[in-house]
Amino acid sequence: MFADPGPTSPSWPLGLDAIAYGGDYNPEQWPREVWDEDIALMHEAGVNLVSIGIFSWALLEPREGEFDFGWLDELIELLHAAGIRVDLGTPTASPPAWFFATYPSARVVTREGTVLGFGSRGMAGPSSPEYRAASVRIATELARRYGSHPAIALWHVHNEYGAPVSEDYSPSSAAAFSTWLQDRYGTLDALNNAWGTAFWGQRYGSWSHVDVPAVAASVVNPAQRLDFARFTDHALRECFIAERDAIRAHSSVPITTNFMAGSCPSTDLWAWGREVDVVSNDHYLTAADEHPEVGLALAADLTRSVAGGRPWMLMEHSTSAVNWQPRNVAKRAGEMHRNSLSHLARGADAILFFQWRASRSGAEKFHSAMLPHTGTSSRVWREVVSLGADLGRLAELRGSRTVADAAILWDWESFWAQDLEWRPSDDLDHRERLAAFHERLWRDGLTVDMAHPESDLSAYPLVVAPASYLLTEAGAANLTRYVAGGGTLLVSYFSAVVDECDAVHVGGYGAPLREALGMSVEEFLPLRAGQSVRVDLSGTSVSGDVWSDDIVLAGASVVGTYEDGPAAGRPAITRHSLGSGHGWYVSTRLDVEGLAPLLQLAYADAGITSPDLPEGVEVVRRASSEATYTVAINHLDEPVAVPADGTELLTGDRVAGTLKLGAGEVRVVRTPR
Amino acid sequence: MFADPGPTSPSWPLGLDAIAYGGDYNPEQWPREVWDEDIALMHEAGVNLVSIGIFSWALLEPREGEFDFGWLDELIELLHAAGIRVDLGTPTASPPAWFFATYPSARVVTREGTVLGFGSRGMAGPSSPEYRAASVRIATELARRYGSHPAIALWHVHNEYGAPVSEDYSPSSAAAFSTWLQDRYGTLDALNNAWGTAFWGQRYGSWSHVDVPAVAASVVNPAQRLDFARFTDHALRECFIAERDAIRAHSSVPITTNFMAGSCPSTDLWAWGREVDVVSNDHYLTAADEHPEVGLALAADLTRSVAGGRPWMLMEHSTSAVNWQPRNVAKRAGEMHRNSLSHLARGADAILFFQWRASRSGAEKFHSAMLPHTGTSSRVWREVVSLGADLGRLAELRGSRTVADAAILWDWESFWAQDLEWRPSDDLDHRERLAAFHERLWRDGLTVDMAHPESDLSAYPLVVAPASYLLTEAGAANLTRYVAGGGTLLVSYFSAVVDECDAVHVGGYGAPLREALGMSVEEFLPLRAGQSVRVDLSGTSVSGDVWSDDIVLAGASVVGTYEDGPAAGRPAITRHSLGSGHGWYVSTRLDVEGLAPLLQLAYADAGITSPDLPEGVEVVRRASSEATYTVAINHLDEPVAVPADGTELLTGDRVAGTLKLGAGEVRVVRTPR
Amino acid sequence: MFADPGPTSPSWPLGLDAIAYGGDYNPEQWPREVWDEDIALMHEAGVNLVSIGIFSWALLEPREGEFDFGWLDELIELLHAAGIRVDLGTPTASPPAWFFATYPSARVVTREGTVLGFGSRGMAGPSSPEYRAASVRIATELARRYGSHPAIALWHVHNEYGAPVSEDYSPSSAAAFSTWLQDRYGTLDALNNAWGTAFWGQRYGSWSHVDVPAVAASVVNPAQRLDFARFTDHALRECFIAERDAIRAHSSVPITTNFMAGSCPSTDLWAWGREVDVVSNDHYLTAADEHPEVGLALAADLTRSVAGGRPWMLMEHSTSAVNWQPRNVAKRAGEMHRNSLSHLARGADAILFFQWRASRSGAEKFHSAMLPHTGTSSRVWREVVSLGADLGRLAELRGSRTVADAAILWDWESFWAQDLEWRPSDDLDHRERLAAFHERLWRDGLTVDMAHPESDLSAYPLVVAPASYLLTEAGAANLTRYVAGGGTLLVSYFSAVVDECDAVHVGGYGAPLREALGMSVEEFLPLRAGQSVRVDLSGTSVSGDVWSDDIVLAGASVVGTYEDGPAAGRPAITRHSLGSGHGWYVSTRLDVEGLAPLLQLAYADAGITSPDLPEGVEVVRRASSEATYTVAINHLDEPVAVPADGTELLTGDRVAGTLKLGAGEVRVVRTPR
Repeated sequence: MFADPGPTSPSWPLGLDAIAYGGDYNPEQWPREVWDEDIALMHEAGVNLVSIGIFSWALLEPREGEFDFGWLDELIELLHAAGIRVDLGTPTASPPAWFFATYPSARVVTREGTVLGFGSRGMAGPSSPEYRAASVRIATELARRYGSHPAIALWHVHNEYGAPVSEDYSPSSAAAFSTWLQDRYGTLDALNNAWGTAFWGQRYGSWSHVDVPAVAASVVNPAQRLDFARFTDHALRECFIAERDAIRAHSSVPITTNFMAGSCPSTDLWAWGREVDVVSNDHYLTAADEHPEVGLALAADLTRSVAGGRPWMLMEHSTSAVNWQPRNVAKRAGEMHRNSLSHLARGADAILFFQWRASRSGAEKFHSAMLPHTGTSSRVWREVVSLGADLGRLAELRGSRTVADAAILWDWESFWAQDLEWRPSDDLDHRERLAAFHERLWRDGLTVDMAHPESDLSAYPLVVAPASYLLTEAGAANLTRYVAGGGTLLVSYFSAVVDECDAVHVGGYGAPLREALGMSVEEFLPLRAGQSVRVDLSGTSVSGDVWSDDIVLAGASVVGTYEDGPAAGRPAITRHSLGSGHGWYVSTRLDVEGLAPLLQLAYADAGITSPDLPEGVEVVRRASSEATYTVAINHLDEPVAVPADGTELLTGDRVAGTLKLGAGEVRVVRTPR
Repeated sequence: MFADPGPTSPSWPLGLDAIAYGGDYNPEQWPREVWDEDIALMHEAGVNLVSIGIFSWALLEPREGEFDFGWLDELIELLHAAGIRVDLGTPTASPPAWFFATYPSARVVTREGTVLGFGSRGMAGPSSPEYRAASVRIATELARRYGSHPAIALWHVHNEYGAPVSEDYSPSSAAAFSTWLQDRYGTLDALNNAWGTAFWGQRYGSWSHVDVPAVAASVVNPAQRLDFARFTDHALRECFIAERDAIRAHSSVPITTNFMAGSCPSTDLWAWGREVDVVSNDHYLTAADEHPEVGLALAADLTRSVAGGRPWMLMEHSTSAVNWQPRNVAKRAGEMHRNSLSHLARGADAILFFQWRASRSGAEKFHSAMLPHTGTSSRVWREVVSLGADLGRLAELRGSRTVADAAILWDWESFWAQDLEWRPSDDLDHRERLAAFHERLWRDGLTVDMAHPESDLSAYPLVVAPASYLLTEAGAANLTRYVAGGGTLLVSYFSAVVDECDAVHVGGYGAPLREALGMSVEEFLPLRAGQSVRVDLSGTSVSGDVWSDDIVLAGASVVGTYEDGPAAGRPAITRHSLGSGHGWYVSTRLDVEGLAPLLQLAYADAGITSPDLPEGVEVVRRASSEATYTVAINHLDEPVAVPADGTELLTGDRVAGTLKLGAGEVRVVRTPR
Repeated sequence: MFADPGPTSPSWPLGLDAIAYGGDYNPEQWPREVWDEDIALMHEAGVNLVSIGIFSWALLEPREGEFDFGWLDELIELLHAAGIRVDLGTPTASPPAWFFATYPSARVVTREGTVLGFGSRGMAGPSSPEYRAASVRIATELARRYGSHPAIALWHVHNEYGAPVSEDYSPSSAAAFSTWLQDRYGTLDALNNAWGTAFWGQRYGSWSHVDVPAVAASVVNPAQRLDFARFTDHALRECFIAERDAIRAHSSVPITTNFMAGSCPSTDLWAWGREVDVVSNDHYLTAADEHPEVGLALAADLTRSVAGGRPWMLMEHSTSAVNWQPRNVAKRAGEMHRNSLSHLARGADAILFFQWRASRSGAEKFHSAMLPHTGTSSRVWREVVSLGADLGRLAELRGSRTVADAAILWDWESFWAQDLEWRPSDDLDHRERLAAFHERLWRDGLTVDMAHPESDLSAYPLVVAPASYLLTEAGAANLTRYVAGGGTLLVSYFSAVVDECDAVHVGGYGAPLREALGMSVEEFLPLRAGQSVRVDLSGTSVSGDVWSDDIVLAGASVVGTYEDGPAAGRPAITRHSLGSGHGWYVSTRLDVEGLAPLLQLAYADAGITSPDLPEGVEVVRRASSEATYTVAINHLDEPVAVPADGTELLTGDRVAGTLKLGAGEVRVVRTPR
């Protein structure tokens, strides 16, 4: 599924012989004398890679077409002399004031028609021809000047495509959307058909009448909105590709752009992953979560999956609190260490932060940094130095691959469709379902990959489909083959409802999976706000809410029956045998606790044995050709023991059978193969 | 109060000799071969009337001035040949893409200044001259072509005027508003006086300065906003009248447009009812209601009242769930049957659905239909066939009239005024009060009409005025005459506060009703959030919230006294005798339970005996010159018995004294007069 | 700190020899015959001052440049003949319809780009040159005509600057902002530096690119937004100054404009107080407050402080309910009396209302008035007459000064900065903290002034700094001197964080107060939603929420220790000795109850003895050179006794040692010095 990176670029930053460690470095915010202090402290912390130039367009090109590289030359030489590798940004996430003043038509327009102003962060309209030209120009200039500089380990194109805005309803976006649609559909008849414009009298007689789906009197055609989401993703990716190709013309240094896996809904990372040389990702804890380490694991697992299982870079995370959440809770002592090694366990070979030194000014002055406002006398700095040393001890994990036990289906197109209006219940929430199934597996000690419904799933004993609302015929056929071939498939409600045009499948809800699941859905039975139902699951009573279905059996056996609610006495959970595999369906929302007995049954079908670990202890394995590395992370406030054999890398201790971890500790054991 | 329909058009769809049964039919969404299947299944279900062409403008006039009627010719012939009558729509609720592209000034502008886009449902600005011209043109073309076609039973102009948008703040709307104001007021002095522009220095010196009440720095002049609501209603009605008159020039087939009684606040249906040949209405259950059948009854009662008591058409309801509510709960088995016969009991001689066949695409693909996505193997289809048969057994009820026991005042102008900003308490809610009084009477087994405050009320022993905030001097005089003539009038708080200009009545709050009620209000005493007060109601203690008044007695006796709260020890509920009638006033919000003892006292004054029925059993009577028809609907999950004598029409059984109904059953008994 | 009012204008309305009593008078809303009744009733109520012409622009200048003063001439003569003094408004808060039609560019534009319409209240864009010219013209015309009229006691420029809108994002505002910035910063380098534009790549290369901080893709530069708040305040004040100077050219009558101390966040009243001859204020109770008299006291204390301790005018309050709150609770019997005398106790020598006679029409028809809709037969009218008589008995208090026990720091610039986005916790709320500390002191029977951090604080034994987020180096030095000089300073969390550019202080959070407090903050530890922590405060356990800090001691001793939470075992409350004074720091949110033991400790350091009064009894003292006046207000529903000696002025009774107050009563005792 993942294209090779091609012959021109290697797939890892150049010149690094250890786990990469460092962060975003913005010395332009500080007087020159601070730079020298920075270098000295970077050495103290073990920093070996920094990202620079990400927000420097206005400094590098102070007036259109006039460039000033002097300060950057000096900075790169300074880092190079200090042996710190450079991840060089293109500054196109934040065009200068002159750009917006000169090209007002490049400003992003919201769905409600507001033209967004300057003075924040955030790119121009991705379809603006003027923006495309200006961004390619500055990328070209940078590549020409630094493309062969020995200091440069990596190109960092742009920053977080899709954030803080992605959709653009400006005239230039509308023109590009129309072109994209003509490419996609060829004829107006095909578009009218795909969008179902016979409904509500929306038939188009001219391409020039097709517009962006701006706010209207009522709900806009969902197929049009789904295509606009596809187009938006495409337009952003075209921006990346244009810069990437401009750089490649002058440089063979590998190229990345930092993703926001799991938190930026507008980019289809399956497609993006094919375009970069190295997958890199930004991740920030959700402070309101009681156990934010579970969401971290999901994001890391998704990033690794986007990278096709290969090592990836944690391009940004935080040493402590961020500044943009409702309550920016600081990390507890040790939490940054556990977070970092959880990313590493899940495939990250680079642990980087936003940012090196806390900014005194601007919107993110309260964001933590490697070097906080209080300086080196702080808890955070001490932990940064300690983490740097520990990563040095783990260098040998580089290149090893994380071992997964199961897969969860993940498809941005399906999410886009589900996020549209007028779905059967406002309580439907694909993020919640994905997170709930992932957390169930996390608590059960299993490591999961994310997978596209049309990808090869044969390696996984268990595949979970928590929210496969949009499932193409091809995807359904793939899942059916997977089951027939011996796989265990667990499908949650509101799946296989529509095709790629957001049109209900012929045959009704779930029809394309009827063969795999031995059932389909005659009618949705959403529950009222606050309503719950009881399900008798093979003798255990569990509670569901949000949803139920009127299920029509077509071969499946009933494993769970509704005790009450609108489907009282009828099937709630079914199991079907097809070939050598099994297809499960669950028609109501079970919470993470309620999923436990159901998953135990599915594990049995899949032949999975979940390890016997205390809940709150995270154990993940990476494997190389020579060894298996067991990363054990104790999120509890008390000591625990887990089974392991080999050499503990942080302490050098020998481990024979039992690895003891103090409260909050992490240990990494190498077991030769 | 209701004008005769006039000599040119009959007042019922042509060519129907039974209760009309069917729904919206949109075959343009399906391949031609499906049409034949549709006809066969319509016959199976007993369908005798379908509505077509409602969203077909873009198909009928694919380019401006170019018409294509071929497919519609074929469809009409097909239906005609099958004996299915046609309700032919004008497609003006959804102008084509070319219309908005050609006439961008016809787009609706919101109060905040957003220009609404294409791609949804929803009409152009109702005051746009270009829209008026285009809609009259297509209506004329349709009337010319099909106005005398024997298949056509009814014209269905437009769709749901007022939804999804009604107010338009565009320049064309502003121009029409100014003209409407000049017609209404004649002089600027009159307008300045009516609007009280001396307040906050808003005096106008030129008609050209008078604008639509767009969003401003603070609250906009309430009299201006009230007039804009009147204008909006007027502009929509002018659209209807223009199409209607265009059709009448070519066709004597009766004309309707489908109302949304009770759920579309922007149309004054008292006025609209006078313009149509047949009153028709769309109604959808509120899924979040525990007993949605009560809200259904209110909407049906209002529709019947708008029709002047004559039979009306239920133009749209749903077989099961809709798609646009927060949680689209499916109907339980039997619920559609009960709903349909409740409408019929309350005067509907047509039971139609949106829509015949569920759409695979578009914004409403999850809306239930007569023929669901799963097809004829479904519960819904079986119930549709069964209902069709039952309606056939009830044909003789056609033309009979529903018998009402009391009236509730209903005045859209008063609602518009109450919905404006800066009222004494955010907890004031006229919808809630109307629904509460209606539900009290529903639970007490009584059937109510809705009535305008200035209409003839003399036929009603009891009139309830739950929210008569805006009450003209004429309305107050009418109510006073009603009481003096022997009526029982029950007025709830926040009534008779302002006149038609939203100006406080001279003499203070309630002054125009002082003679009828023997009291007035010195000061409003709104309660704090969550605060409740106790009222001693002739020895019974009931609880109120939201509101209390400082009442000044002027002849009334005190029936209820505040035990606590800001008016502790002072009158809460009063009763006054005037002539042979009685005027009641209640100054706090009693819930449906709390209203029970109060209404019992009012029933006693009015000479009303409420029937002795289990709560949850709905009994409504229709009467013709030959017979009385008792429709009994058991909403309970257990069998009940109600008194009745005669012949049960669905089973043919003889009923002598006691009619037994199983759980959820409906029975209809004919008793000869 | 406060400039003298200058030689040209006296500092109190002319021709008043009593406490001023009256209100806004808008006879243009009524027929001429009502005016005579008004005068008679004003005499009955003891009214001696009315405010007129505040919303009369459209009447006075019905077309641009055409003036009609006839009706105003007549009104002024009528009042003059009746001996009622006139506070003459300039009508510039509400320009006429013709103004906005002629000068559409003068309309206010919101941050989202909406152009605000006419038909409400609310001024034009304050930076509009056309508005400035038109307002100076009408003010000049009025001053020319009435500037020497013996009826005129006071000029009332405009109305409530800053409400209902203050910020304007129109092009004319953008142009004025750019000019203001050039004046403030001189060079673009200075601006880039102050705004920290190196962050997120916002560096400006041309003044023409600097814009108003309209809505953007993400958070806009906080220093830019803070400067825009400063500019907005400045632009409004420039409007006032232009009118004031235009009037002064023709009149030596004193000039005021009515503030909204404590409820209008956009005006820096420290600066405004220096520009007016007389400080006047509008105040309305917050109906949702259980004890709205506490918020009243805060607003009155702030107004007095803005007036430099001199007497001030209560320009508007209400006799009972207002109309613009969610639930407009009516005042209880006696409440208006208590409110009025609390204002008087806190320095008001004028007790005026909005408005004299309730308006029948318009947005505020439900606002109470001196003469309600029901007229003179009402409770409100009787209390208005009684209050007028009582104020007559208190005439001798005029000119005496309120005695304060402590100060609370108050700085609008700091509030503006705190109200920006992306602060560490959404639960931070400077209003809440200020109100909580103020209420603690109110309940402890102490009277407080508000003071700017850079003002002379040496007269106060105790200074509380509840929310000094933005604290300049100069302010911090002032506070440090204050402590060293013997003062007691109590600082709450999130203080001394940033400088005047919203840049974190060098050295970290709280660094500028390290000397005064003997500590600083290494890291913020905001608490989760709903989370609370226990603090052991010298043996008493109190509960905090919202916030905690990781404190680094630098000499302070620990008075309170966290028992749990993210800083468990570490300092929560500290006390430091510097010179002869003490600096306290409290790092979590204690509620009003929880603050009690902490404040007792601070009172001890400050040498303050709080009086022994029942909570709910308000005692405030005013002092003249001859006497002390003790105003005692019993907010309780039962009689109380307070210590006092002298003559009670409302009853004439002698008081020896004990003053008895009935439930809800107010008494004023004169004690000769």
